[in-house]
Amino acid sequence: MRDPKASSTIRPEAIIIVTGSELVRGELADENGPFLAAELARLGLACRRITIVGDDPGLLESAIAEGLDADLCVISGGLGPTHDDRTIELLAKAAGRELHVDLELERAIDLVGRRYARNVGSAYHAFQAGVRKQASIPEGAHVLGLAGTAPGVTLEREGRVAVALPGPPNELQGLWPAALASEPVHNVLVRVPPFEHRVLRFYGLSESTLAAALEQAGGESGGVTVTICARERELIAEIFVEPGAEARAGELEDALAAADPDTLFSRDERPIEEIVLELARERRLTLASAESCTGGFVAGRMTGVPGASDVFLGAIVAYANEIKEGLLGVSTETLARHGAVSAECALEMAEGARRALGADVAVSVTGVAGPGGGSSEKPVGLVFLCAAGPDGRLEQEITFSGGRDQIRRYASVAALHLLRRLLTHFRHIEV
Amino acid sequence: MRDPKASSTIRPEAIIIVTGSELVRGELADENGPFLAAELARLGLACRRITIVGDDPGLLESAIAEGLDADLCVISGGLGPTHDDRTIELLAKAAGRELHVDLELERAIDLVGRRYARNVGSAYHAFQAGVRKQASIPEGAHVLGLAGTAPGVTLEREGRVAVALPGPPNELQGLWPAALASEPVHNVLVRVPPFEHRVLRFYGLSESTLAAALEQAGGESGGVTVTICARERELIAEIFVEPGAEARAGELEDALAAADPDTLFSRDERPIEEIVLELARERRLTLASAESCTGGFVAGRMTGVPGASDVFLGAIVAYANEIKEGLLGVSTETLARHGAVSAECALEMAEGARRALGADVAVSVTGVAGPGGGSSEKPVGLVFLCAAGPDGRLEQEITFSGGRDQIRRYASVAALHLLRRLLTHFRHIEV
Repeated sequence: MRDPKASSTIRPEAIIIVTGSELVRGELADENGPFLAAELARLGLACRRITIVGDDPGLLESAIAEGLDADLCVISGGLGPTHDDRTIELLAKAAGRELHVDLELERAIDLVGRRYARNVGSAYHAFQAGVRKQASIPEGAHVLGLAGTAPGVTLEREGRVAVALPGPPNELQGLWPAALASEPVHNVLVRVPPFEHRVLRFYGLSESTLAAALEQAGGESGGVTVTICARERELIAEIFVEPGAEARAGELEDALAAADPDTLFSRDERPIEEIVLELARERRLTLASAESCTGGFVAGRMTGVPGASDVFLGAIVAYANEIKEGLLGVSTETLARHGAVSAECALEMAEGARRALGADVAVSVTGVAGPGGGSSEKPVGLVFLCAAGPDGRLEQEITFSGGRDQIRRYASVAALHLLRRLLTHFRHIEV
Repeated sequence: MRDPKASSTIRPEAIIIVTGSELVRGELADENGPFLAAELARLGLACRRITIVGDDPGLLESAIAEGLDADLCVISGGLGPTHDDRTIELLAKAAGRELHVDLELERAIDLVGRRYARNVGSAYHAFQAGVRKQASIPEGAHVLGLAGTAPGVTLEREGRVAVALPGPPNELQGLWPAALASEPVHNVLVRVPPFEHRVLRFYGLSESTLAAALEQAGGESGGVTVTICARERELIAEIFVEPGAEARAGELEDALAAADPDTLFSRDERPIEEIVLELARERRLTLASAESCTGGFVAGRMTGVPGASDVFLGAIVAYANEIKEGLLGVSTETLARHGAVSAECALEMAEGARRALGADVAVSVTGVAGPGGGSSEKPVGLVFLCAAGPDGRLEQEITFSGGRDQIRRYASVAALHLLRRLLTHFRHIEV
């Protein structure tokens, strides 16, 4: 609707379309929307919406037709060989272009199909049917390359660009650099005006308190936009600054930071596990975890960071009490007197993990994840944590609300933040 | 557009709208869309689309206006006290209704706010500003109850119903039962015609082979719809059956099942970890894991199932070689000769976990998750697995493609399926 060339200070707009019937039936959570949205935000485009739609031709076509109205429309999924893969055909229809078979593309897909059939020991005829279908692209479209047998495609139309990419996240992400490097997409990206983005992250602060601090400082104004959102019990304030509004942005940033300085832990977007690993690395300390109710989530997050192995040694998931006793050395008396969900047990688990895993610092988590197993004394959501290091310990008791998965995730985040606090205050001991 | 009362054999249609600027910027992956979509599918509604949109008033209003066209529109997010929470105001605008302050609701929110402020030791004035805003609802709307200080709301309009729910997943899920029980939503649900849904799940089968089997059996026809999708290397075929098409559905089901019977592992939707726990429970075997590159993901999935503790004892995350040696008893010679990423190491890890954790059956995973650490001999993605039990072992070597996170997730799924295969073939030994 709006003229893409109207003003050079307006950010080009993008629409993301994700297709897959399993997504609108809730059988799978989409990963491509978040990936593409983060990429587009990083590049400075404004994402109008993410539309998730099934493979019904009418609904998919109307979603694509809406998408073609944006400066950049990225479509994921529906490029496969099966009957319900209809993206390219409907993109052509929505754009008013004919489909034609790209002979070079057909040869390339044929080759990949033959190789794959050989590898999995499958008969090639199962693949052959899909080759011509996958080699058919709209008139004027350009091929970005193949992911498996699926081609990524760009289509330019009156200064607006559509990009179709395969649905499997690794294939989409594999073709994404080629999409960015392609001439049509590049021509959209050069229209992005300069902009700035600041982040403040808090742990242990209420959303209302931060909203009140923003209000008292005069709120959004003069080219500064602020969003506040809670995520896994972290509170994230983002400040978007138009050119010339740096001074006003600085005022708001200071006011937000002053809302509760003790809870402000980061001014960048690195996940908490990366912050913890870096703190330990700087202090030359190794890390480990002892987990009961979180069942390995803390270790899973730590080891998700590339290069974690120089700091993070490992974990003991002590789900059964026998393992708490046998491997972590939690005393039989502690378990009998206080139970596995207790501050005493958390403390012995953390010290036991340091010993058993040979780590300088260990964090432990034990709690009632539910839905069963709660009591009036120890309700579902009650979690005890302990971070123990060479110069001291931090202990914490929290009761989380929510379902089993949420309690486990929140408890993992709490464990990571407890480690952060312990490491931040670590008094370096010269050896 | 279409008359909701046109035919009693047409499934009512739903649109899900999820609002949050952090979602269109890709800083967070939406959880509410998948939850709501799964719920609506379970109830037999056809979900037309999931629209994810930021808090820009124009874009959110037009998304809501689209949503109001569906039989049921569920909106998540934007109900909070802050300046960028605009859902209720825009719902009223899109529906052509005035906003009014619900006095009873105002009293209820006021009470919650005061209690919360007392709990967190915060001044109440920080909350007060938001109370009137959160107590304002469209004329004719009904309040479903409070989650925190945010009210869920239903609004009926010419037989079509909109439901607004808070954005935090636990709050949304907490109010969902009240939404389903409300009269307007109930009136939509009773219009759902009977339908049937069958599932076949395969592991180790190619999408093309299954698509070819469907094609050979005559494809979709006569009231039977089939979708095929790959998810974490499992292949899921779903058959949707209209009343009267049961015979045709049975033919297609048999044809798909015959595509490669060895790879068909389930005819229901239970996650693989639940299947594994149940197999072990039936055989009275306890389980454990020894994880290197997956860093606790296998244990995390196992312990995500409520009641896992009677079967799953725990895990050792042996990220450092010292832990592989010290706790799992992997021999120094094995590590020196074959390296930590080897079939030999995987075998010793699995047997070591059985011993150290006192479990009947253990699975081990060791591999190169990347992005660094690969070599021509042991490339990124190479993973060795071993499942060991009282009557035998299964070993596997796989090379996964994709990024670090994907390789780790795929390797966890492979470990769970290896356990499934071992347990399925377990010869029961009378003790």
